[in-house]
Amino acid sequence: MTLWALEIEYDGTPFMGWQRQKHGLAIQQVIEEAAARVRGGDDVTEAVASGRTDAGVHAEAQIVQVALPDLSPVRVRGAMNFHLKPHPIVVLRACPAPPGWHARFSSIGRTYRYVISNRVVAPALEAMRVWHIRQPLDHEAMHEAAQTLVGHHDFSSFRASACQAKSPMRTLDRLDVRREGSKIIIEAAARAFLHHQVRNMVGSLVKVGEGVWPVGRLVEVLAARNRAVAAVTAPPEGLYFTGVLYDPPLALE
Amino acid sequence: MTLWALEIEYDGTPFMGWQRQKHGLAIQQVIEEAAARVRGGDDVTEAVASGRTDAGVHAEAQIVQVALPDLSPVRVRGAMNFHLKPHPIVVLRACPAPPGWHARFSSIGRTYRYVISNRVVAPALEAMRVWHIRQPLDHEAMHEAAQTLVGHHDFSSFRASACQAKSPMRTLDRLDVRREGSKIIIEAAARAFLHHQVRNMVGSLVKVGEGVWPVGRLVEVLAARNRAVAAVTAPPEGLYFTGVLYDPPLALE
Repeated sequence: MTLWALEIEYDGTPFMGWQRQKHGLAIQQVIEEAAARVRGGDDVTEAVASGRTDAGVHAEAQIVQVALPDLSPVRVRGAMNFHLKPHPIVVLRACPAPPGWHARFSSIGRTYRYVISNRVVAPALEAMRVWHIRQPLDHEAMHEAAQTLVGHHDFSSFRASACQAKSPMRTLDRLDVRREGSKIIIEAAARAFLHHQVRNMVGSLVKVGEGVWPVGRLVEVLAARNRAVAAVTAPPEGLYFTGVLYDPPLALE
Repeated sequence: MTLWALEIEYDGTPFMGWQRQKHGLAIQQVIEEAAARVRGGDDVTEAVASGRTDAGVHAEAQIVQVALPDLSPVRVRGAMNFHLKPHPIVVLRACPAPPGWHARFSSIGRTYRYVISNRVVAPALEAMRVWHIRQPLDHEAMHEAAQTLVGHHDFSSFRASACQAKSPMRTLDRLDVRREGSKIIIEAAARAFLHHQVRNMVGSLVKVGEGVWPVGRLVEVLAARNRAVAAVTAPPEGLYFTGVLYDPPLALE
């Protein structure tokens, strides 16, 4: 058996999130069970994700490590996808893990996208794919406010109480807000994020977009280092885990 | 009661298509029953669509006429959306129908989009929203071939046997093929289309994209006026009904 790196896409809607739960199906469990079948046994070995997504959060390019046989990347991908059916999880690419590599600890960058449907009527075609907000949002004010969060800060105000990270310090490399028709797209990049950090930042940016908070308010929220002063967490269905960086890059194929 | 024009969006996946069926739920039935509830009774009156979509086909902006009370457009939309729940159908905008206007017969133009996911792995996030084709398609060859179908022609080769139109003559105003990342997007515009015309044209364009047919083959297929010489019908889940034109335009709000 070899440790493999898999690039996977999933629709988070039917799952309890990445992490195995006692009650309800998790993405981790589906991947571990598919990998066991590819290995030709029932022995489940742990699959580790570069970032653990919450229930309802989607992934376009999550990176997962798991033990799999010594086959070609094309055969590993095909075998995994065969056994992942009918779940909405697919392996896009695969490669044997480099020596010493770890899906989570070796990552030097992660990117997320958050999508808001900003129109009067709730989405029919994109239900469970976007956060629907009726009130027109000022995306330019949101972008301006977002820039005050970029940089190396104590993000305690945007950190879930359940967050297990030792330090609340993080370096936010990018937080861009733009409009595409009736959609507002928020792109975030950092080496690592705190638990719920993206969804908590989006919740507060929406307060600015609604005009409830002035653009400058997020400076105060950040400085308070207190979760209670920030806005509510944005719902999971608008969030997409879009990529992970490693140095050297993985030779996925 | 007033005749209203409604602009509606729907996810075609759970429906038998637009038209009422003896077995299974149709979009027409859901709309007619919601309209009856908005009128405050059980008397169902017919809803007419500008174009009847097949099972699995989606709509971003279908136009429907149906009898509704004399309320403001905002209240009609709100009441309809309340009674359309939990079905994935929403009214985006509404207006009282102009005198003599008919959703289907007054239309002077219709547009469709067809989306192909052209990558090795089947989509997890866009399942039932795209046609998945593994083999790389030459979108430029597809676009070139598409241009030979534009214009006033006998489209018998691209017409479903069940088509009820009196004439197979149609004027195709636009058939554009472009690539966006791993997606191939086909946009079609005409005053009217034959039954399955867009999906049948897409099926044949894919033969060109695969390199199985030369670009010039569609000229022969069109000239044959014989459904048997064209390729199979593309599946419904990649098709979106994107708009309808009227002259004068509807004052939807």
